[in-house]
Amino acid sequence: MAPQLDSFFKQVDTLADSFIDRLRKAVAIPSVSADEERRPDVVRMGEFLASELKALGASVELRPLGPQPHKEHLELPPVVIARYGDSPSKRTILVYGHYDVQPALLEDGWATEPFKLTVDDKGRMYGRGSTDDKGPVLGWLNAIEAHQKARVELPVNLLMCFEGMEEYGSEGLDDFIEREARKGGFFEAADAVCISDNYWLGTEKPCLTYGLRGCNYYSIEIRGPAQDLHSGVFGGTAHEPMTDLVRVMASLVEPDGTILIEGIKEMVAPLTEQEKALYGDIAFTMDNLYESLGSTTGIYDDKEKTLMGRWRYPSLSLHGIEGAFSAPGAKTVIPAKVTGKFSIRTVPDMDPKAVDEAVFKHIDKVFASLKSKNTCKASLQHAGKWWVASPSHWNFTAAGKAVEHVWGVKPDLTREGGSIPVTLTFEQATGKNVLLLPMGSSTDAAHSVNEKLDRKNYVEGIKLLGAYLHYVAEEPMKG
Amino acid sequence: MAPQLDSFFKQVDTLADSFIDRLRKAVAIPSVSADEERRPDVVRMGEFLASELKALGASVELRPLGPQPHKEHLELPPVVIARYGDSPSKRTILVYGHYDVQPALLEDGWATEPFKLTVDDKGRMYGRGSTDDKGPVLGWLNAIEAHQKARVELPVNLLMCFEGMEEYGSEGLDDFIEREARKGGFFEAADAVCISDNYWLGTEKPCLTYGLRGCNYYSIEIRGPAQDLHSGVFGGTAHEPMTDLVRVMASLVEPDGTILIEGIKEMVAPLTEQEKALYGDIAFTMDNLYESLGSTTGIYDDKEKTLMGRWRYPSLSLHGIEGAFSAPGAKTVIPAKVTGKFSIRTVPDMDPKAVDEAVFKHIDKVFASLKSKNTCKASLQHAGKWWVASPSHWNFTAAGKAVEHVWGVKPDLTREGGSIPVTLTFEQATGKNVLLLPMGSSTDAAHSVNEKLDRKNYVEGIKLLGAYLHYVAEEPMKG
Repeated sequence: MAPQLDSFFKQVDTLADSFIDRLRKAVAIPSVSADEERRPDVVRMGEFLASELKALGASVELRPLGPQPHKEHLELPPVVIARYGDSPSKRTILVYGHYDVQPALLEDGWATEPFKLTVDDKGRMYGRGSTDDKGPVLGWLNAIEAHQKARVELPVNLLMCFEGMEEYGSEGLDDFIEREARKGGFFEAADAVCISDNYWLGTEKPCLTYGLRGCNYYSIEIRGPAQDLHSGVFGGTAHEPMTDLVRVMASLVEPDGTILIEGIKEMVAPLTEQEKALYGDIAFTMDNLYESLGSTTGIYDDKEKTLMGRWRYPSLSLHGIEGAFSAPGAKTVIPAKVTGKFSIRTVPDMDPKAVDEAVFKHIDKVFASLKSKNTCKASLQHAGKWWVASPSHWNFTAAGKAVEHVWGVKPDLTREGGSIPVTLTFEQATGKNVLLLPMGSSTDAAHSVNEKLDRKNYVEGIKLLGAYLHYVAEEPMKG
Repeated sequence: MAPQLDSFFKQVDTLADSFIDRLRKAVAIPSVSADEERRPDVVRMGEFLASELKALGASVELRPLGPQPHKEHLELPPVVIARYGDSPSKRTILVYGHYDVQPALLEDGWATEPFKLTVDDKGRMYGRGSTDDKGPVLGWLNAIEAHQKARVELPVNLLMCFEGMEEYGSEGLDDFIEREARKGGFFEAADAVCISDNYWLGTEKPCLTYGLRGCNYYSIEIRGPAQDLHSGVFGGTAHEPMTDLVRVMASLVEPDGTILIEGIKEMVAPLTEQEKALYGDIAFTMDNLYESLGSTTGIYDDKEKTLMGRWRYPSLSLHGIEGAFSAPGAKTVIPAKVTGKFSIRTVPDMDPKAVDEAVFKHIDKVFASLKSKNTCKASLQHAGKWWVASPSHWNFTAAGKAVEHVWGVKPDLTREGGSIPVTLTFEQATGKNVLLLPMGSSTDAAHSVNEKLDRKNYVEGIKLLGAYLHYVAEEPMKG
């Protein structure tokens, strides 16, 4: 039976302006984690959240993470952890968000002051952090407040984890999560996790995200002479590292995206009929692709193949070359040491270590075939595993019903091509199902100029977060 | 019959210290043409030369070249032109040199003050410009002075052309040379040209240089999306310009240096037995190559092939890529527009325009075969033609005899792999044979820190320049 949510919803509408005001206060704090001089503002933002949570009756702690690695004079901003409700008879949902933001300057091209929430006549709320991730974080606080004012009891216990370094690599967070997820830790009681830090696929239809690709990032270093050479003097007499490198790089991937490394294709989970069926209904068109590309240079001509190319198949991108001539103009240099960079976006069931092996074997083989006197050394720069959750888990079915209730449509079930590493950390640390439940839309321009959150996405998003907690409380335990 | 040169040689030895003093005065003027603030010093250096020449009885003019292109507030330093001797019964030799130098700072790693000539116990004379090109320029003045003091008549008329912008691309000089080589111009009477602005192949044996490679420099621009993309979001769905570019670049040249562009090989002049015979005696070993490479990654294992690879066959070098990720670290970007840079060192009988056509046809064909939706545009950035003179011309045979007389060995007959564009300008403007007659050795470190000229190369070099003029006067007119 659908939960009775009317009085909660009504209260959200009543409080909408004050919720926007709360967002305005949050946006006004320039909590830029990448900027050393803004560190006090990041801390201030954490304290603002803590005080708002306390005012709502949550039990709150500000947990220090120690000095920042490689910048030991700087203290990391605290993790804000909070508990709201502690009933043994209720399920406990752990929610995550971040309160730091990307840098933003008016002179970058913003039409409005980036740290002043500015609402236009179409309800677009411009401001740094509006959608990434202050809007969603405040969504949880707003949902609690609306429940209180509507005198509706929250049907679950809420655990909250809000960090202040996400835009700078979530320094120190992984260890913290692992520690608190253990027996006796703050997150021990969690039955499922919900993260609201991504976006709808388009602008019309909400989505639930159940998968992310991983990323293995590689370097290929080729070196020959002891120093850069003049091509007039040495061209035609020395093995040139660039000549070898472009051949190795060209051997990795076809122009149509086909990965040429032996064994990679075989690692990919086969497409099931059930999975294939998910793609047809997804609100996405080729024009959406072309618009975001700014061109029509897509590989596939149909939506399904394009979405699968983005989400469920691996891809290999060549990023660039370090050590070669990269400035404008014409320099007749033979670079002595060049390092090619490429990455493979990984998907189920690719084992990152097996990918490494296949990559190194391929590069060694191709380089050997060149019969060059130079030396070649391939290495892994970093690896992040893919993540995929079962969309039939109660955490997802509950969220799906909440979307239908609030928005009147079934959500798109999506994956993403990029990575949100904290997702995998939470899954591995808690051993529980993790759901990505986005609030903003594809046009919100997170990380870019004129970042915004639509008023409708915010207000209905608050309803959705609350509704999700009610459906979660009602779902049968399975999966 | 060999000219009687003994009293001239003796005079050179007698005056050696005062010639070194003249070089000391010249090195002390920091005539750095690339440095705007040093422009008055460049001018001062030109005036120093002019006054020394006048003192020797030459007729001298300082010819202005107008404002510097793109830096209109700066006047170009004057060309110093001079005439010494005007007898209709004598041959007229036009000599060229430059009086500007590369930048130099003690903190670049110089062991001594760069603008103070410092002579060590092995007779190495350190100082910026010592070998490039103040030593050789003063060589002509010293040869005149030694003739005067030895009361030996100069057997040719000398025309001199000393410029002050060589290290900055010889701005304004080409037009000047063309104008003065015409009827009624200052260079009209020249019967041959001699340039002393390069180096011996090694350190033991002088050489005469009769060829230079040309250089055609190309860009390949490949573009797709309107802006750089995130490989997580777009990897696997969009044609990536880097993927196309490395394939096109890999199609140009083999790791062993073989150029893969159809038609190029056929343009190269076949090797004659006569030419091949020149290579055996040349003072060069594979160790010389390995030492200058700082590695043993040479393509060929024998001297002849290596020298031919450097001098008489074309080579293709890949210099780098503009627009791709080139910094250290791991950035997951898909570059939207990348521009590959490469150049072809050209040799006789390659026609630069025919090379362009072959290059563009090849790139178009390879790119079409990729079936990419991106666009590809290849273009020529600049072209400089190769140069080759006949080493059997009297200008060369005279110089060869002078070398034998002064040094007691037959000179190496060499080409160079790089270019000295003014050589071609003089040849084309005057229509006369041009000889490159180096004074310094391969270890002089022109353009580098601790530039030097060996005392022996300077003193014997002055004798060589004088002796050359005597043999020139005696050679039968042929070739």
